[in-house]
Amino acid sequence: MTEEQLSSYHPTLPPTTEEDRFSWLRLLRSRKVGPATFRRLLREHSSAQNALAALPEMARAAGIKGYEICPPGVIEAELKAAKAANAQLLCLGSADFPHALNDLTDAPPLLWAIGDVSVLRKPSIAMVGARNCSSLGARMARGLAADLGKQGYVVVSGLARGIDTSAHLAALNTGTVAVLAGGVDVIYPAENTDLARDIAQSGLRLSEQPMGVTPQARHFPRRNRIISGLAQAVVVVEAAAKSGSLITARDALDQGREVLAVPGHPFDARAAGCNLLIRDGATLVRSAEDVIEALPRQKADLFEASVPEIAPEPVALGATLHREILARLGPSPIAEDQLIRDIAATAGEIGPALVDLELDGRIQRQPGGLLSLTA
Amino acid sequence: MTEEQLSSYHPTLPPTTEEDRFSWLRLLRSRKVGPATFRRLLREHSSAQNALAALPEMARAAGIKGYEICPPGVIEAELKAAKAANAQLLCLGSADFPHALNDLTDAPPLLWAIGDVSVLRKPSIAMVGARNCSSLGARMARGLAADLGKQGYVVVSGLARGIDTSAHLAALNTGTVAVLAGGVDVIYPAENTDLARDIAQSGLRLSEQPMGVTPQARHFPRRNRIISGLAQAVVVVEAAAKSGSLITARDALDQGREVLAVPGHPFDARAAGCNLLIRDGATLVRSAEDVIEALPRQKADLFEASVPEIAPEPVALGATLHREILARLGPSPIAEDQLIRDIAATAGEIGPALVDLELDGRIQRQPGGLLSLTA
Repeated sequence: MTEEQLSSYHPTLPPTTEEDRFSWLRLLRSRKVGPATFRRLLREHSSAQNALAALPEMARAAGIKGYEICPPGVIEAELKAAKAANAQLLCLGSADFPHALNDLTDAPPLLWAIGDVSVLRKPSIAMVGARNCSSLGARMARGLAADLGKQGYVVVSGLARGIDTSAHLAALNTGTVAVLAGGVDVIYPAENTDLARDIAQSGLRLSEQPMGVTPQARHFPRRNRIISGLAQAVVVVEAAAKSGSLITARDALDQGREVLAVPGHPFDARAAGCNLLIRDGATLVRSAEDVIEALPRQKADLFEASVPEIAPEPVALGATLHREILARLGPSPIAEDQLIRDIAATAGEIGPALVDLELDGRIQRQPGGLLSLTA
Repeated sequence: MTEEQLSSYHPTLPPTTEEDRFSWLRLLRSRKVGPATFRRLLREHSSAQNALAALPEMARAAGIKGYEICPPGVIEAELKAAKAANAQLLCLGSADFPHALNDLTDAPPLLWAIGDVSVLRKPSIAMVGARNCSSLGARMARGLAADLGKQGYVVVSGLARGIDTSAHLAALNTGTVAVLAGGVDVIYPAENTDLARDIAQSGLRLSEQPMGVTPQARHFPRRNRIISGLAQAVVVVEAAAKSGSLITARDALDQGREVLAVPGHPFDARAAGCNLLIRDGATLVRSAEDVIEALPRQKADLFEASVPEIAPEPVALGATLHREILARLGPSPIAEDQLIRDIAATAGEIGPALVDLELDGRIQRQPGGLLSLTA
């Protein structure tokens, strides 16, 4: 009952009743059921309800003690939170589910969506890059996103600081999709709260995570596969060597998506990742035209769009807090509680900073709530 | 008797006597005899002397009236100038002729060399780029040339301002070859007089042109084929769109040489040519290691080399003169003499500036010594 890679695409019949949808959610939220297992169970048991009934016995047979399927109360709470947030459930196989994800071996069976789902019917380009990007990188992201928007492409990104933020902002008026690492109702980073709200109004926020889930480092790579999966091509705008954007680029290649990168001078460390990608065969991008030219031949839905307003760059907050955390940590793990007391910050303040540093690979979480510097 | 491209390589027996060398020079300096015709004539007539004897009749048969072979006095003067400049004649097919040029269809039959011809036996990398390069470009050229030198590669370039100058300077101690567009004894630009002298001491200056010839715009593309021909690979360090470096890169590809380019941010117009080359398949270069890795497998002659001293960048002279010339010229041609009088500069001062502007495509020479702005 572990996750497995399916080597071929098996069509899944979407749920048709409220009861069905409830069972889908419950099956997916049950322990040890990931996207691939979900699809296998559905195929083998022909419905989520049947799969749920069979799960405990299957777990027992696999040697897992005390296995229980997800309690109905958890699903009731999730549905209630979704209603409050005006979130809509998109189910694999249904008409409103993003078609681009259908052929992924680990396509999310369910997505929560807040906003205008019609943007999922348009051709899309993903833009990713450094959170601590240069002003040149931010300008490039804005220019590309605005021009791609004018050409009828929806810009998909991850609502992160830096490149993501610039890309979303420039594409607000023409269509943009933010795929979140946590719940679709949990905005991270907090400084992008207004942007997230604007995206929900004119574009779409998406997440495969349950409502209310706070993003953890392990959520981000899984989220990234959805960003690249939704798009025909992934443009890496600015990325240092060994950055998360390079992992997204590799995933994109595995998914059969075009990978493109904006070059920079070799003396600029922030271009190192992009230059590496180009050396490895990614298409060099100078402009939106270069992106469109690299796409597999397919006519874009052209539509009228006004020039997007460019909002000012958000001010980078928390740099001081990051430095303070790094100064307190060493190779020997200490408890997160202790760190919070030492720094005299609230858990609410320190939490996002820890996620940042974890994503940057600067700190590591150890079992038992312990933290250390990455060796 | 026009120039033709030879599709296969025909070995040429080099001259063995002084008389033979005289005849080679005389044949090559005769009107309408270029490198390909030279080789054809030598093949058909088995010696330069026989070819010279046959030339007038061949010209007559081809309908050329009043054809005369090069007078012996011209060759005597050239040999005298060569002796004064300590220049050595390298003949196609002889042991000291650069082997890398042997397989070019339009290899120069003769080259004048001043300096240490042993550098021609070492693996070589050509470095080319903008004359009006950025300080970033100059720094990159210095770094690449110094590192390639340490790895045992001779750096070949064209003694121009900008990238060429930086590359030569950084490779002075490890070996560098300057291929000149005019005579091997005519230093252009004048500001590189000291550098040209230093190259002749520790490296080599080369030219296929007769001694004393002032470089003309048409000489540069022909010279560039020798730069790329001498090298295993051509690195374009910084080049705007539509620059001469791109023509050199295309020639290099035709010659079967590797073409590499240093990327830059798309907002930097001075990187446009390099980014274009990379989009078209040139290897992206971040460091000397990237260059060496791209070479066809072949062991470099490693040799000890100290870290080259980096001389300060030469100050760009003549910018004011260039502006003055452009201001005086218009689309209607005026006489060069008139221009010199208008500007109150000497012909010696204005000549190099005119070559610069011609190379930049800013001005055009018309028949009868007339000059105009390029439309």
